[in-house]
Amino acid sequence: MRQPNASTKGTIYGVGLGPGDQDLLSVRADRLVRQAEIIAFFRKTGRSGQARQIVNGMLADKVQEISMEYPVTTEISISDPLYNKLLSQFYTDCTARLQAIADRGKDVVVLCEGDPFFYGSFMHLYERLKHNNTVKIVPAITGMSGAWTATAAPITWGDDVLTVLMGTLSEDVLIKNIANADAIVIMKIGRNINKVRNALIAAGRFEKAWLIEYATMPNQSVQLLSEANLEVTPYFSIIVVHGKGRRP
Amino acid sequence: MRQPNASTKGTIYGVGLGPGDQDLLSVRADRLVRQAEIIAFFRKTGRSGQARQIVNGMLADKVQEISMEYPVTTEISISDPLYNKLLSQFYTDCTARLQAIADRGKDVVVLCEGDPFFYGSFMHLYERLKHNNTVKIVPAITGMSGAWTATAAPITWGDDVLTVLMGTLSEDVLIKNIANADAIVIMKIGRNINKVRNALIAAGRFEKAWLIEYATMPNQSVQLLSEANLEVTPYFSIIVVHGKGRRP
Repeated sequence: MRQPNASTKGTIYGVGLGPGDQDLLSVRADRLVRQAEIIAFFRKTGRSGQARQIVNGMLADKVQEISMEYPVTTEISISDPLYNKLLSQFYTDCTARLQAIADRGKDVVVLCEGDPFFYGSFMHLYERLKHNNTVKIVPAITGMSGAWTATAAPITWGDDVLTVLMGTLSEDVLIKNIANADAIVIMKIGRNINKVRNALIAAGRFEKAWLIEYATMPNQSVQLLSEANLEVTPYFSIIVVHGKGRRP
Repeated sequence: MRQPNASTKGTIYGVGLGPGDQDLLSVRADRLVRQAEIIAFFRKTGRSGQARQIVNGMLADKVQEISMEYPVTTEISISDPLYNKLLSQFYTDCTARLQAIADRGKDVVVLCEGDPFFYGSFMHLYERLKHNNTVKIVPAITGMSGAWTATAAPITWGDDVLTVLMGTLSEDVLIKNIANADAIVIMKIGRNINKVRNALIAAGRFEKAWLIEYATMPNQSVQLLSEANLEVTPYFSIIVVHGKGRRP
């Protein structure tokens, strides 16, 4: 059986969808999603998946949908070697599914929340696909940009330093980085909220920290972190501390 | 003479245009720009202005264009108090022009390169307008997102720390921040390129630093900084050093 050569292969698109509002997709992403014959997206087992939800109502009637369901839950610690092994096998399997589509000469649009190259899951497929396939990335508005816009105040001024941190970092590392920064964004908070709160207090930036949940979505909420009494934040929550730079 | 009340005032839109490619405007920005009766934009005297250039061919036939021309050039040092005084007066004048439009009950779309709340000039008008006018911000794809997408490699993985720095910072501050970061973005390079180069070398991150000029634009260029022999970089250049986080 003849292998299709590179020129007859389909293209795999990693399409950033932005922070959540359909109106904030780029013109290119909007066109690719609406015209797609085949889409793929990550989701947790039993969930509809945030990326898939964003494009509700935009898809062609006969679109083929490929859901890629994470094999692990938060029950397994990310420091567990089993976690990495399971995830690595999962990404390899997803890669094979996408390659099979491209080998049939078909394009596939992979839906990505936020910006694909900024802390996204698609990059794990991208690294496995890029040598043998045509992969095109469509950048997008980041979730953090949706969050700071929701606060109705600029995040950075003049020569402010912006530092972006994950709530999964250790408290010591968080404190050191928060103390050095002017403007701060903290993502992946979830069950790390108490650690993050303590780090902001220790570094003297707690009072002006904002918690944004579901930025740009219908259920968006914006409040001072000091007024949020939470033991866990939703997955789509971001903490923002504004910069303090020169302002003529 | 009766003052128009708030409900009859027009809306002032701060519309992010993204990194430069028209196809990367958001659906909302695209619609606002195409439907605008009045647009406004910053530019240097004698230049066409980058924001205005991005929307070439998109504007309504009878659109009214308001150019806001910076009163200062790079001849004046930003540490000079005269610079701040001139700029402050300029922003106050621009604010008055936009308010006069809103007072006539007309909307105005202010074109902003990149994302308005991320190191943008519009925020200086926003802070002056927000108390007495309805100002709506449309977030956008940042210039740095266009730049890292152009490198064809993810900027951040796992729990990488991302630090965004301006080339206008002192060499010491640059070195300290570069040494602490995983992934790095440096903007506002221009005549600071030698200082930035020295800081990257001193902090041990020079070898894998990329220089992206005119990201997402027809004249886009991507090269290792170590292979770029420049004494000054164009205004639309960004340095990117990719993160090195966990990758299953």
